[in-house]
Amino acid sequence: MKVVLIGSGNVATHLGIALKEAGHQILQVWSKTLLHGKVLADILHSSATDDLTKIDQEGEIYIIAVKDDFISEVAAGLNLKHQILVHTSGTVSLDQLAAHADRCGVFYPLQTFSKNKSIGFLTVPVLVEGNTQEVGEVLFTLAGTISNQACEMSSEERSVLHVAAVFACNFSNHLYALSEKILQDRGIDFNLLKPLIAETAAKIQHYPPADVQTGPAIRNDLLTLARHKELLNNYPDLKDIYEILSNSIMRSK
Amino acid sequence: MKVVLIGSGNVATHLGIALKEAGHQILQVWSKTLLHGKVLADILHSSATDDLTKIDQEGEIYIIAVKDDFISEVAAGLNLKHQILVHTSGTVSLDQLAAHADRCGVFYPLQTFSKNKSIGFLTVPVLVEGNTQEVGEVLFTLAGTISNQACEMSSEERSVLHVAAVFACNFSNHLYALSEKILQDRGIDFNLLKPLIAETAAKIQHYPPADVQTGPAIRNDLLTLARHKELLNNYPDLKDIYEILSNSIMRSK
Repeated sequence: MKVVLIGSGNVATHLGIALKEAGHQILQVWSKTLLHGKVLADILHSSATDDLTKIDQEGEIYIIAVKDDFISEVAAGLNLKHQILVHTSGTVSLDQLAAHADRCGVFYPLQTFSKNKSIGFLTVPVLVEGNTQEVGEVLFTLAGTISNQACEMSSEERSVLHVAAVFACNFSNHLYALSEKILQDRGIDFNLLKPLIAETAAKIQHYPPADVQTGPAIRNDLLTLARHKELLNNYPDLKDIYEILSNSIMRSK
Repeated sequence: MKVVLIGSGNVATHLGIALKEAGHQILQVWSKTLLHGKVLADILHSSATDDLTKIDQEGEIYIIAVKDDFISEVAAGLNLKHQILVHTSGTVSLDQLAAHADRCGVFYPLQTFSKNKSIGFLTVPVLVEGNTQEVGEVLFTLAGTISNQACEMSSEERSVLHVAAVFACNFSNHLYALSEKILQDRGIDFNLLKPLIAETAAKIQHYPPADVQTGPAIRNDLLTLARHKELLNNYPDLKDIYEILSNSIMRSK
């Protein structure tokens, strides 16, 4: 398909590369920062603009990959006729695009993207939704060209999935960061934790996470819990997190 | 070395297998539940007992791998002379063994063990500590026979490492479990999150976690944060966790 990318951040970059590699043509990249747009356009053998009024009208699909709060604003500036307009957000409803395009939808790749780390897109679930059956089918087919895990999902279900993803991904990563901070303050090498982090994530590929819970809270090891809280006395924020999560684990038994 | 294993849980099982595979001899397995001891002893071509007074005195090293709260009790029952006595806990101090053996130490494999999932022990950091330099060296050498990541560490540092491991591993796994619960209640397949979980853990093998933080909190995406909290209205406990971790991420910027 002929694709116009609206955005030049992590999602736009990885999605653009995956679409390009699958044989689609990236007509143009829009970014509010022209330099960022040009960097991505170069990678995609495309051109860049920072002016919404100069968006190429020859595209078949316009993919908005900007911060959730700006989706409506950008969509309003696009002035499309019958081309398909989609956003890539896990949380924003399809309705937010309906005022700006006859044919609209959602094209949500469920993955955590970092600019400098390449991704095997084939295993990334892509959740699609169209405002009509026809659009839904086009998006499902497009998703199938870059992923083995294309799947139609309503806005409501997608937002539940997104909350769950925040717990599983964003919060876990933050816990990794907190553990690194605890170690750094004492001059202990964070590398020691890496095999543990890898194994914890590997386990749940095959076992329900609740079944493989380990640690002092699930063992009701009150002595260790008390010692840990004492060790965190200098970190009141971390102590609160330690308590709320340990209590949640104990309740889950 | 000639090893006596005190315990038959996850740590005893994986450690026993790794030691056996490295050519050490497991003389005996003690377990308070004789059947559990026999199951492990069978795997290790060893014998089992549930009677501390019948512990084989021919061992060179006695490895206690029981719940932290029982370490002292079990150590007191052993009645060793000059054999080395170690525990495998991240949190319990070496001092707790000093009253029960002249030569004592800690042999702490930093990994999350589940009974039915095998582990490549070579990459598991094994943190050792001896009450004398001689014991420290014996333990370091023993650790080096099963792991490429043997390292001496004091009780104090080890307990900091253990707290950090609870954040990085136990708490992350619990967040996976919570995300599965959120999805299950709405009939959405938890498998959709598995590539995301794998990538989140894979990323930090190469990047500092704080540098690859994604999600609404780090983007200060207030609209999404508000929507997510609304979606969690029926889960007051999860809403609390969502708030405390999102606030912590926002403060970390």
